[in-house]
Amino acid sequence: MYEILDRVNSPEDVKKLDITELKGLAQDIRDAMMNRLSKRGGHFGPNFGIVETTIAMHYVFDSPKDKFVFDVSHQCYPHKILTGRKLAYTDDAHFGDVSGYTNPEESAHDFFNVGHTSTSVSLAAGLAKGRDLTGGKENIIAVIGDGSLSGGEALEGIDFAGEMDTNFIIVVNDNDMSIAENHGGMYKNLKALREGNGKAETNLFTAMGLDYVFVADGNDIEQLIEAFKGVKDSTKPVVVHIVTKKGKGYAIAENNKEHWHWSMPFDPETGKSTVNWDGGENYGSLTADYLTKKMDKDKSVCAITAATPMVFGFDEKLREKYKNQFFDVGIAEETAVALASGIAKNGGKPVFGVNSTFMQRTYDQIMQDVCLNSSAVTFLVFSASVYGMSDVTHIGIYDIPMISNIPGLVYLAPTCAEEYIAMLDWAVEQDSYPVAIRVPGNGVVHTDMEIPADYSELNKAELVKQGEGAAIIAVGGFYQIGEKAVKILSQQGINAALINPRFVTGLDTPMLDTLKENCKVVITLEDGSLDGGFGQKIAAYFGSSDVNVRCYGMCKEFYDRYNANELLDNLGITPEKIAADIAAMLK
Amino acid sequence: MYEILDRVNSPEDVKKLDITELKGLAQDIRDAMMNRLSKRGGHFGPNFGIVETTIAMHYVFDSPKDKFVFDVSHQCYPHKILTGRKLAYTDDAHFGDVSGYTNPEESAHDFFNVGHTSTSVSLAAGLAKGRDLTGGKENIIAVIGDGSLSGGEALEGIDFAGEMDTNFIIVVNDNDMSIAENHGGMYKNLKALREGNGKAETNLFTAMGLDYVFVADGNDIEQLIEAFKGVKDSTKPVVVHIVTKKGKGYAIAENNKEHWHWSMPFDPETGKSTVNWDGGENYGSLTADYLTKKMDKDKSVCAITAATPMVFGFDEKLREKYKNQFFDVGIAEETAVALASGIAKNGGKPVFGVNSTFMQRTYDQIMQDVCLNSSAVTFLVFSASVYGMSDVTHIGIYDIPMISNIPGLVYLAPTCAEEYIAMLDWAVEQDSYPVAIRVPGNGVVHTDMEIPADYSELNKAELVKQGEGAAIIAVGGFYQIGEKAVKILSQQGINAALINPRFVTGLDTPMLDTLKENCKVVITLEDGSLDGGFGQKIAAYFGSSDVNVRCYGMCKEFYDRYNANELLDNLGITPEKIAADIAAMLK
Repeated sequence: MYEILDRVNSPEDVKKLDITELKGLAQDIRDAMMNRLSKRGGHFGPNFGIVETTIAMHYVFDSPKDKFVFDVSHQCYPHKILTGRKLAYTDDAHFGDVSGYTNPEESAHDFFNVGHTSTSVSLAAGLAKGRDLTGGKENIIAVIGDGSLSGGEALEGIDFAGEMDTNFIIVVNDNDMSIAENHGGMYKNLKALREGNGKAETNLFTAMGLDYVFVADGNDIEQLIEAFKGVKDSTKPVVVHIVTKKGKGYAIAENNKEHWHWSMPFDPETGKSTVNWDGGENYGSLTADYLTKKMDKDKSVCAITAATPMVFGFDEKLREKYKNQFFDVGIAEETAVALASGIAKNGGKPVFGVNSTFMQRTYDQIMQDVCLNSSAVTFLVFSASVYGMSDVTHIGIYDIPMISNIPGLVYLAPTCAEEYIAMLDWAVEQDSYPVAIRVPGNGVVHTDMEIPADYSELNKAELVKQGEGAAIIAVGGFYQIGEKAVKILSQQGINAALINPRFVTGLDTPMLDTLKENCKVVITLEDGSLDGGFGQKIAAYFGSSDVNVRCYGMCKEFYDRYNANELLDNLGITPEKIAADIAAMLK
Repeated sequence: MYEILDRVNSPEDVKKLDITELKGLAQDIRDAMMNRLSKRGGHFGPNFGIVETTIAMHYVFDSPKDKFVFDVSHQCYPHKILTGRKLAYTDDAHFGDVSGYTNPEESAHDFFNVGHTSTSVSLAAGLAKGRDLTGGKENIIAVIGDGSLSGGEALEGIDFAGEMDTNFIIVVNDNDMSIAENHGGMYKNLKALREGNGKAETNLFTAMGLDYVFVADGNDIEQLIEAFKGVKDSTKPVVVHIVTKKGKGYAIAENNKEHWHWSMPFDPETGKSTVNWDGGENYGSLTADYLTKKMDKDKSVCAITAATPMVFGFDEKLREKYKNQFFDVGIAEETAVALASGIAKNGGKPVFGVNSTFMQRTYDQIMQDVCLNSSAVTFLVFSASVYGMSDVTHIGIYDIPMISNIPGLVYLAPTCAEEYIAMLDWAVEQDSYPVAIRVPGNGVVHTDMEIPADYSELNKAELVKQGEGAAIIAVGGFYQIGEKAVKILSQQGINAALINPRFVTGLDTPMLDTLKENCKVVITLEDGSLDGGFGQKIAAYFGSSDVNVRCYGMCKEFYDRYNANELLDNLGITPEKIAADIAAMLK
C-alpha cells in the first residue's frame, strides 16, 4: 500500500533511496499521517510541513548516534515513522503504540519527553556539552519552529549556543506561524531574511553569535540534503534557517493554518470534523462573552495571551475586533505576566488567560513582578484539572501547589459558571490584589443559588449546608462530587456539612473552628495534586485538634494518557466511595 | 558639604543646572554614595557607572510622569538621591530610610519592587500598554544592564517591544560585565557595536524590530542629554545603547569590576574591607573544594552557574582552571537547568549551584526538562533559609513549597557539613534521579557521628534518638534547634524522640507509623515557609490518627529586611519555646 515506506524500517533504509524515491517516501509519510490523523486527530500542520526536513535529516545524519531534539516535539511524527514506529500511523490497531511527542521509552532515537515549547536548543546544548565532556564526536541537532523562538528559554539557549566552540546545529523551521499568527519584533527579521534569500540588513542569529545558512525551500529534499551535508560535523554552532509551509501537501490545511495546527478526526475529502461536537457551553466562550462585553464598556480592560488565544475563546474575529485591548505576546509567558503587572500599575485592568501547565513557565514573574508588587492582575487558569489535557507533558494538576503558596496572591476556585463570572468580575474591578481564578475543569455547571458579587473578605468560605459529625470541604470543580457524597450520606442518616471554600490561598479559620465543635471528621476534595495543596493546609490546621482529616486529590506523580474517571475511581474519588469512607470513619 | 547636591531636592532642581553644575552634581552623587557604601556596603560598581545616565534622564524626562523602570534596580542609588532620598546617602542617621532597590513605598518615582534580573523591559512594556489603554502620553523608559540582557524574560520583552507601535525607550547600559564577566553569543555583537561606534554587520536590537541609537560615552552627560532628547516622545520603540564604565570614578573599583559589583563596608583610601571577616568555613568553599577534587578525578563531572559562580566558591582562578568543566551560562537560569538535563542525558554529571530565590526562575524547566525526564542533575540550593538574604526580593524560604511538590525530584536536607558532602557525592554518582540538596543556611556545623554514603533508599529518615510521648522532626538547618529542644525537654524528664528526615520530597511512613504507637505529639521544624512545605505533609499523614502535629516554620509572607533571630523568636522557633510548647501539649 505504501510503495516506498513499506521498504523503510529505519534511518539506514532512508540512506539507500535515490532522490525520486525520497520524494515518494515523503508522499507515503503524508499518507500514513493522514491515515492516523483523520481517524484519531493530532498535530496536523507542523507534521505535514516538516516531512522533507525529517527525511533529509535522516538521510544525512546518523541517528541515534547523531542526536535530534525536536522543540515541543509535536512535529515528530515523520521522525517516528522513520525510526521504527510507522505501524502507529499505517495500522489503526497500533495507533495506541505512540504518544504525540518524542518519548525515550518508545525509541532510542528519542532523547527527551518534550511537550512545552522553546526547550530544544538548551536541551540539545546540554547533549553537546555532555558529548564534549565524555569525548564523543556525534552531531547534535535541535529543530525549533519559528513560533517557539520567542520563548525566553529558546532565546537564552541560542545566546548560550552562540559562544559554544563546538559542533551544534540549530534547524529553524520557519513557517511564519505559531499556533496562531506569530508575534514579536523578530518576525520582521525572519520575513526580511526570507524575502532576501537569507540576506537582510541585520540577522538575529548572527547577532547572537551563530553561523547562518539559509534554505529557501524547506520542502525541497535536495536543497535540504545539500544544506545539512554542508553543516554536518561542523565544529562551530550554526543555524540552518529553512522555510517550510505548515500543512504542506493538504491544500485545506495550507489555507487555514491556525485551524489545522491541531485537528480533531476529520473526513480527508472535505476536511470536515467527523466528531459530533455539539458546540455547547464551555468556559472558553463564556469567558470571551464576558470579557468582550466588559471591554466594550471599559476601555482599560484588556486580555492577554501567550500564543493560545483560543483558551479563553478569542478567535481570529475577536482578536481583530479587540486588537487595541487584546494582546498576544507570542510564546513568551514570562513577558505576558510582567506585562500584565505593568499594565495594572498604569491604570489598566489586565486579564491573562493561560493553561495550568503553561503557567508553570512563569513562577518567578508571578511572585516577583506581580505578587510582590500587589499588581491587580487577573489570571484565568484553564485545564487545571484531572479532566484537562492528559499527556504527561501537559497535565494541569500542579497549579495549586505551585501558586497558592506564593504570598500576596488570591486564588479563587469557583464551583459553577455563575460563581466563575461573579469572581471574574470582582477580580477585574478590584485593584488591591493579584487574583487567579481556577476555571472549573469538570464542564459547565449552573446553579440557581444566589452568588455574591464581592469577594473582598478574603478566605471567607461558604457553608452551603450545615451538618454535624462530618464536613466535606469541596474545592472548585470537585464541589459537585462533595455535593453528591453529602446526598448519599443523608440517605444513610448522616447529616454531613458541605463547604465551598471559594479561596485556596487561605483558610476560613473561624468556620474551621466551628467544625471543631461538632465534627469528628473533615474531608477535603481538590481537583489537583495533594502535596503542597489545599487539603494539607486544612490537615495542618486541625493537626493539634481532635478532628480527623482526610484529603482527596491526585498523587504527586507524572500521570500519562490516563482516563480521568478510571483514575478518580482508583484514587477513591467518587461520591459513593467518599461517602462510604466517611461513614466508616464516623463509626 | 555637597556643593551642588545640597541644592538638588527633586528632578525639577536638576533641570535648572547648567552642564558644569551637572558634572559637579555627578561628583557629589559619587561622594554621597561613597559615604554610604564605605560604611554600610551595597552595590558599588553598577551605581558608580550609572551616575551620568541618571542625571541626564532626570534632566531630559519628567519623572514621575515619565516613568523609569530600572532592571534588577541595584543601580537605582543615583535615582534615589535625585528623587528626595539623598539623606539616606549623605546622612548616616538616615541610612535605614531606603532599601537597596526601587521601592514604590519610598517614592512616587519608583513603580516596582524589583530585585531579580531581566524584568524591566516587560514591566515597562506593561506601563506603556497601560498608558495607551488609558489615553496617557508620558514616556516610558526601561534601563537594563548588559548582564541582564541574556535572561529569557528580557529577551522575550525586547522581542515583544519590537512590535509595539508606540513610545517605548530601552536604555541598554553596556558596561561589558554581568556580576562576573558576561556570557553568551550576543556579547560579541555588543562588542562589535561598541568598536564600530554603533555600527556592525548585524545588530541584535534592530533584528528584534527596534530602532537603535548609540552613545559612545555613557559617562558623558552632554552625549547622554543629546541622545535622550532625540528619543523623547518617540512614537516607536527604540533602544539607546550606552557604553559606561562599571565603578566609574573610583579607580580601585574600575580595576576589579567583579569584586566591586557589591561591596562590604571598606576604607575609601585603600578599598580594603573594614569588616572583620574571619574567612572561616562556609558552604561555598566547602562545595568548591569537593567539586574541584571530583572534577579532577572524573572529567564527566561539571559545575554550572547562571552568573553567580561565587555561590559555590568558583572564583576567577577556579573558573579558569576548570574552564572545560565549569559552565557559566550568564543570567539564564532556564538554560542552565535544561543544559544540565542534556548533559546528564549524554554521559555527563552536572551540578547546578543556585540561590533559592533565583531557582524560582526555572520552575518549568525543573519539572519538564529535568524531572519528567528523570535526568540525574544535582541542584545545590543556597541561601534557602531564614538566615539567607533578607531583602524582600531575595528571600529564600519558598524553595520547599516550590520544588518539593514536583514529581520525580529527590530533595535532600542535610543537617551538617559531613552529611552535605555525603549527599552531594551520592547525588553526583547516581544516575537515577534529579537530586536537589538544600545547603544548610545556619552556618557550617560539624558532626562526629557516622554519616551514610548511600541515599538510594528514598525517604528513609534517621531516628537520631528514640523517645516517647513526643517526637521532633527537624529538617536540615533547623536540626540543631530540634536537638537543643530535645535536651531541654530531657532536663524536664521528657524523653522526646529526635528525627532527621533527610528527605523533604517524601515521608518515611514506616517510621511515622511507629510514632503513632508511642507519641501523642509530633513537632516539625523547617527553615522555610510552612504553606505547601514539609510539615504540612506530616500533618496530613497523621490527619486521621490521634497524634497531634504542630508545624514550625515561616508564614506565607513577604518578609523584608528582617532580623532573623528576632523573626524566629516571634514565630516561637527557639529551642526554649518549642520545648515549652511540647511540654504544654503533653499535659
